[in-house]
Amino acid sequence: HTDATSTNAILRAACTWGNTPDGGMNRLTCNDDDKSVRDWFISETKKYGCFHKIDEMGNIFAIRPGQNNNLPPIAIGSHLDTQPTGGRYDGILGVVCGMELLRVLHTNNITTYAPVAVVDWTNEEGARFPPAMLCSGVYAGEFSTKYAQGRQDADGITLGAELQRIGYMGPTPCSFSENPILAHFEVHIEQGPILDFAEKAVGIVSGVQSIRWSNIEIQGREAHTGSTPMDRRNDALLGAAKMIVETNRIVTETKVGPRGGRATIAVINSSPQSINTISGKVSLGLDIRAPADSDSELIELQCKKSFEKICEEHGLTMSFDNFWVSPAVVFDQIMVECVRRSAAELACDMEIVSGAGHDSVYTSRKVPTAMIFVRCRDGVSHHPSEFSREEDCAAGAEALLGAYLRYDDY
Amino acid sequence: HTDATSTNAILRAACTWGNTPDGGMNRLTCNDDDKSVRDWFISETKKYGCFHKIDEMGNIFAIRPGQNNNLPPIAIGSHLDTQPTGGRYDGILGVVCGMELLRVLHTNNITTYAPVAVVDWTNEEGARFPPAMLCSGVYAGEFSTKYAQGRQDADGITLGAELQRIGYMGPTPCSFSENPILAHFEVHIEQGPILDFAEKAVGIVSGVQSIRWSNIEIQGREAHTGSTPMDRRNDALLGAAKMIVETNRIVTETKVGPRGGRATIAVINSSPQSINTISGKVSLGLDIRAPADSDSELIELQCKKSFEKICEEHGLTMSFDNFWVSPAVVFDQIMVECVRRSAAELACDMEIVSGAGHDSVYTSRKVPTAMIFVRCRDGVSHHPSEFSREEDCAAGAEALLGAYLRYDDY
Ligand SMILES: NC(=O)NCCC(=O)O
Ligand SMILES: NC(=O)NCCC(=O)O
Repeated sequence: HTDATSTNAILRAACTWGNTPDGGMNRLTCNDDDKSVRDWFISETKKYGCFHKIDEMGNIFAIRPGQNNNLPPIAIGSHLDTQPTGGRYDGILGVVCGMELLRVLHTNNITTYAPVAVVDWTNEEGARFPPAMLCSGVYAGEFSTKYAQGRQDADGITLGAELQRIGYMGPTPCSFSENPILAHFEVHIEQGPILDFAEKAVGIVSGVQSIRWSNIEIQGREAHTGSTPMDRRNDALLGAAKMIVETNRIVTETKVGPRGGRATIAVINSSPQSINTISGKVSLGLDIRAPADSDSELIELQCKKSFEKICEEHGLTMSFDNFWVSPAVVFDQIMVECVRRSAAELACDMEIVSGAGHDSVYTSRKVPTAMIFVRCRDGVSHHPSEFSREEDCAAGAEALLGAYLRYDDY
Repeated sequence: HTDATSTNAILRAACTWGNTPDGGMNRLTCNDDDKSVRDWFISETKKYGCFHKIDEMGNIFAIRPGQNNNLPPIAIGSHLDTQPTGGRYDGILGVVCGMELLRVLHTNNITTYAPVAVVDWTNEEGARFPPAMLCSGVYAGEFSTKYAQGRQDADGITLGAELQRIGYMGPTPCSFSENPILAHFEVHIEQGPILDFAEKAVGIVSGVQSIRWSNIEIQGREAHTGSTPMDRRNDALLGAAKMIVETNRIVTETKVGPRGGRATIAVINSSPQSINTISGKVSLGLDIRAPADSDSELIELQCKKSFEKICEEHGLTMSFDNFWVSPAVVFDQIMVECVRRSAAELACDMEIVSGAGHDSVYTSRKVPTAMIFVRCRDGVSHHPSEFSREEDCAAGAEALLGAYLRYDDY
């Protein structure tokens, strides 16, 4: 069995770096705090008998040998990076549960059939270097290493340069075929309200909904705010504002939305940012989700159409770059069954489709994959107030151990 | 008489610093190019027999003695700073016409009755350090020196620190009472379409419409874009977008707008700028104009009311800071008559209320003030394509000389 006190102590330790005054975390990929927590992760997992592989994307594999070391390891992965206004659980809890599992194996002198790997996947959030799940994506062959290393943050700094700066661009190829695993488990906070509402500590994740991310560039024309008549303007920010309102309307009021679609614009840059010069250029970041691929496609299509109409009305031009699609995923039936049986021992049986993306989305393309959700208060995440009770975090670790040993046996 | 070739040569010289590749100018207050053009302005006006006073706000007075040097000078002022996406005429032409007048006096050995001062007012645009007309405003007693020196740009750098950095925080008090002038003339491009439409080179400015600038801070709540249901959000950017759309609707569709009001939002900052975290905080800059003070007040009131409704609807909170009001101005009748007679000699008789604010707004609080407008193509300004023909620029200088000598005589 796992130990509640130990699990929560590891979790607290994992939150040492990147605290914000409001009780949250800001551990954007490859900032100095991300380096510190990586160093800690390596030194802690060494204590549980692990050796380490660091790949070209900075993914860290802490590997504990098994009885059959010519088998690839069964992996437990998640991420230690956070949003700029992130919490202390999203991603972190998943790595921590893997570490608690290593501790239990080590303390009890258990040697698993296959080796165990606990993985810290780089840049899962995608907050600093979009898209999300970037480095599990490279591992699974969705993106090339070159593409991913070249991704830029808002200041134009590349992920590759930052990995090098913090000393985490490793020698291992970032590739499933050259550094394989047998299967992938992930514990994660739910980030939704279902378990909290049902009063269940953990849940069985049956799959993940589809995601589409796009960049929109709107070109208008700068002009004087005081002397330019209202009907002679090409106001890029007014056009952008109408797009934001329309995006919301499409998923809340039309036939697409009620089927469960979500669409959000949360990144905006306007220029020249002068109070008396009409905006000439705006860029937007659009995030669309839906359980069915066809619905997120349909929402995107409706947004695009309505954006084009807005451009026409205001004499603007637009480019629409759908730079990332993560199709809906259904997890492996045997793995999910292992989770189901393990969760049942904790009197939990809810099955949930994840609203957020996870590294497990990409591992599932290559190996059997399943996830365990942990209840979080009000379903809030990506906010400093994100919170899961100690007993629920411990339940996550316990459900993981049960599922893991079942799969290892199998 | 002024000389067309000379006027345009001085204008070209004044545009040496701060050129952008698109043919426009980016000479934001106190950047290195602003320092260079100030140095040039001083060395050129020295050639026409001027001595110089630089005040605590960096306003430069190039003074050419007259017959009665116990009289304050009659001033000709405008500005050499530009918008970040500015043109080669806005402000610059007014200083240049003053310089051409100095040249004519000097070359023809004319000593005016009162001294002449050509003034470069600091930070007229207000693009870097809002509000606009800041340093003529200090001079006229509208703002304290301390307030103005403490104004910050988007990076938190103060105007005072920047004046010191470029060596233009002078010893002269920035104050009408301690450094008086007798009257103020200003030549400026129209920045509107009236003269272009009427095919007239210059126009008589009878006054300036009212301006109100406000900062709005909207507070929402960060949350996950993928897992947060649409009806459980406090999306600050969605609220801001609705405010931008409403602002436009209020002046274009309601009873307020058709009376000539204009309202624009051109500055927006959203945080945390992560594509998968709902915006928790947005700030907006709102610019309202109308010929009548009561109309701009009414537009502001309507905006505020509708913003409050939007906040209620989305569970947001808001602060609304109306940090600048520049009431409508009617210029001095005798000064305007001098301009009228001078313009008549160029077969121009159109009278215009300015849509943009000018340093003359503040000088008019202390001394008789009038302005001459020069035609600009399509009324476009605050854009790199801003353009006035050489013969129209020359007409501006000529109309100024005629008006100036009439007033000096008077
Ligand atoms: N779990 C999580 O917040 N992942 C970030 C990727 C996403 O936006 O869904
Ligand atoms: N003339 C001019 O563009 N002045 C800037 C102040 C304003 O916004 O009207």
